[in-house]
Amino acid sequence: MTARLAPPYTTPRLKRTPAATKRDRPEAHVIGAAHTRFGEMWEKSYRDLMTEAGLAALQDAGVTGDEIDAVFVGTMSAGKLVGQEHIAPLLLDGAGLADRHLPATRVEAAGASGGVAFRQAVQLIRSGSADIVVVGGIEKMTDVSDADAQAIASAGIDQEWEHFFGATDAALHALMAKRHMAEFGTSRDDLAQVAVKNHAHGAKNPLAQFRRAIDADTVLRAPVVADPLTMFDCAPLSDGAACVVLASSTVVDSYRTDAVAVTGSGQASDTLALHSRETYTTLRATEQAARRAYAEAGVSAADVQVAEVSDAYTIAEILAIEDLGFVKKGQGGPATREGRTTFGGDLAVVNPSGGLKARGHPAGATGIAQVCEIVWQLRGVAGERQVKDAKVGVTHVVGGTGATAVVHVLEARRPGGEA
Amino acid sequence: MTARLAPPYTTPRLKRTPAATKRDRPEAHVIGAAHTRFGEMWEKSYRDLMTEAGLAALQDAGVTGDEIDAVFVGTMSAGKLVGQEHIAPLLLDGAGLADRHLPATRVEAAGASGGVAFRQAVQLIRSGSADIVVVGGIEKMTDVSDADAQAIASAGIDQEWEHFFGATDAALHALMAKRHMAEFGTSRDDLAQVAVKNHAHGAKNPLAQFRRAIDADTVLRAPVVADPLTMFDCAPLSDGAACVVLASSTVVDSYRTDAVAVTGSGQASDTLALHSRETYTTLRATEQAARRAYAEAGVSAADVQVAEVSDAYTIAEILAIEDLGFVKKGQGGPATREGRTTFGGDLAVVNPSGGLKARGHPAGATGIAQVCEIVWQLRGVAGERQVKDAKVGVTHVVGGTGATAVVHVLEARRPGGEA
Repeated sequence: MTARLAPPYTTPRLKRTPAATKRDRPEAHVIGAAHTRFGEMWEKSYRDLMTEAGLAALQDAGVTGDEIDAVFVGTMSAGKLVGQEHIAPLLLDGAGLADRHLPATRVEAAGASGGVAFRQAVQLIRSGSADIVVVGGIEKMTDVSDADAQAIASAGIDQEWEHFFGATDAALHALMAKRHMAEFGTSRDDLAQVAVKNHAHGAKNPLAQFRRAIDADTVLRAPVVADPLTMFDCAPLSDGAACVVLASSTVVDSYRTDAVAVTGSGQASDTLALHSRETYTTLRATEQAARRAYAEAGVSAADVQVAEVSDAYTIAEILAIEDLGFVKKGQGGPATREGRTTFGGDLAVVNPSGGLKARGHPAGATGIAQVCEIVWQLRGVAGERQVKDAKVGVTHVVGGTGATAVVHVLEARRPGGEA
Repeated sequence: MTARLAPPYTTPRLKRTPAATKRDRPEAHVIGAAHTRFGEMWEKSYRDLMTEAGLAALQDAGVTGDEIDAVFVGTMSAGKLVGQEHIAPLLLDGAGLADRHLPATRVEAAGASGGVAFRQAVQLIRSGSADIVVVGGIEKMTDVSDADAQAIASAGIDQEWEHFFGATDAALHALMAKRHMAEFGTSRDDLAQVAVKNHAHGAKNPLAQFRRAIDADTVLRAPVVADPLTMFDCAPLSDGAACVVLASSTVVDSYRTDAVAVTGSGQASDTLALHSRETYTTLRATEQAARRAYAEAGVSAADVQVAEVSDAYTIAEILAIEDLGFVKKGQGGPATREGRTTFGGDLAVVNPSGGLKARGHPAGATGIAQVCEIVWQLRGVAGERQVKDAKVGVTHVVGGTGATAVVHVLEARRPGGEA
């Protein structure tokens, strides 16, 4: 059969010349950012949420519909959760923009869908084909039963080799946690401290799903989801939408003087199945995505003051701060326990929004909500949860157990100047 | 609530400067193309199909895994059809490339998913961030019941306002056909002639699902799906995968001397719901996508010798050849009946592959299979179905009833020269 896949071809191949290097190209800047409250939003439909976030982001940017060149949207499982595929045109229709006939594209990478959508918009601006691009992210997860939603959330792991045999997203993260504990002495309490920190942060975020501080005992005494992870080690199922507006270098100065530059973008993948990887305690996709994003931006982990990272499970944040290079491998637990990743610590403040754990985790919306938070931090308008003198921020989002990771570097930009 | 979506912002907005114009940038070229046979492939899994097409395309391009910079894949409903979201990393894993940790992105736009995925790859190359990009498209539609597959296929129309009330993708296309007949005198036989032509073409395509010619009576006497459309007016449910390899201007000459240049790319959207549009007999999304693609390429419809267009239903091809500008509005039926769009006609040969109707329509794979066909035509290796002296080809794919349309212009490229 393989021989019939393509007509025969006989012209000799030539050797490859060196890869292209970075060119003189337009760069992307965030000029508008908004997200709905995250939570159980039974009174709002999928398109209600999308429209609410979209219009708020346009208003924040001062952009009218006539100025938009393209739209992207990240969503994980609209097909299974609300029965609707093909949602990108819906977003435009909801905003009253259907008659502009804009390119509107949905991208999907499980829990990393929002981050991947954001990256497509950045690349479109860098291609010189667009000046204003709108990127949304959305998920409505509470219109189906909890059991169905958990099964759907596990569509981001390998169906044939993991989920079919009973593994869930949570169970695989529990394996990663156990292994991290065995290799590096990470304690059950270290994991709990991630949830404690992020709930404390979320308490200061008016848009968060959970706005109350908890203590370690609450985490440790909660029902076990997959040993050692309890309910409070796991991000909730959430409804919500988020939206940002990007502008090219060419037009950004016409919009706002406090635009945030996207100076680095990295995306990487790994095997879908956890068991195929050489290690359970490092996400190679995060490492690679971070390496690429830092290289583009010309920064290192030490330059970052604020980061929104994936904490779909408490172990995920510990892996993230290690794989992003904020601490050495194995030091994620102690760094969290010692308060180094919260306000007043010596490292980047990690998940000032409350993270996926407390702000909530509407899968497709998460990657865009992270960008919103970093933009607000770099603008200096994050209120009670403002990170002092934040100049360089990072977003990091993961799909499944790490088969996709996306990292972006965002930097405060001085009026008329470079990042 | 809206007021709380984003922190307050008070800096005055400035006026917008003119949009950026096209820059000096790398362009994209197709250097490899392959697809599996389309049909009911119960003996092959989703990942089997994907891997088969992917490896064949790499072989056709003479590209090794080490040279790939990024991967895109278009699929409509893997989540519902095979229970798996997050399929982009699977494609890499299947090809033995997981350890390269490449960016791998799934895009979705119902039946236009493949076309939109191809466009993302073109834009990535234009951004200067990648030299070699692989784009796959896949769908496995026959592992669920026909009824379930039909319902899933209708996830590309508006769930809340169309499908919930009993409308299907076929029923809405039947409305479009009825209206076209009323407005322009298109006959029931004109519709049948689209199927007759495409079956005649498909009979010459070894990879087609249906390889037998039919006559108009076969179409007219077949069971009615949605009046006036019979079973032979509708493309089948299919399994299949397709893959192409793109190279930037920088490296293309190192691979092949008969690379095909992607000189124009256009994508456009419309309301998801048919009833919200001002007309049922013109797809504004196709018109706009074509206008943009032709403008980029500097060609007009009259320059095109070969086209692969959406014929998910016979009426769809009639709309397509009108909205792409091959004939005036209302003349699609007569042009088809008079043989102007087949071999020996005076217009572009439309769907020499057999189209969605006869080659088959694995939703996400279709847009990429169209690119394969045009590449083979422009290379001059299409065998029995070769269009003579083909220099300019067009691909056109539609999602749902036209809420997304994607048009690409591909041109034969002389060694070392421009398209």
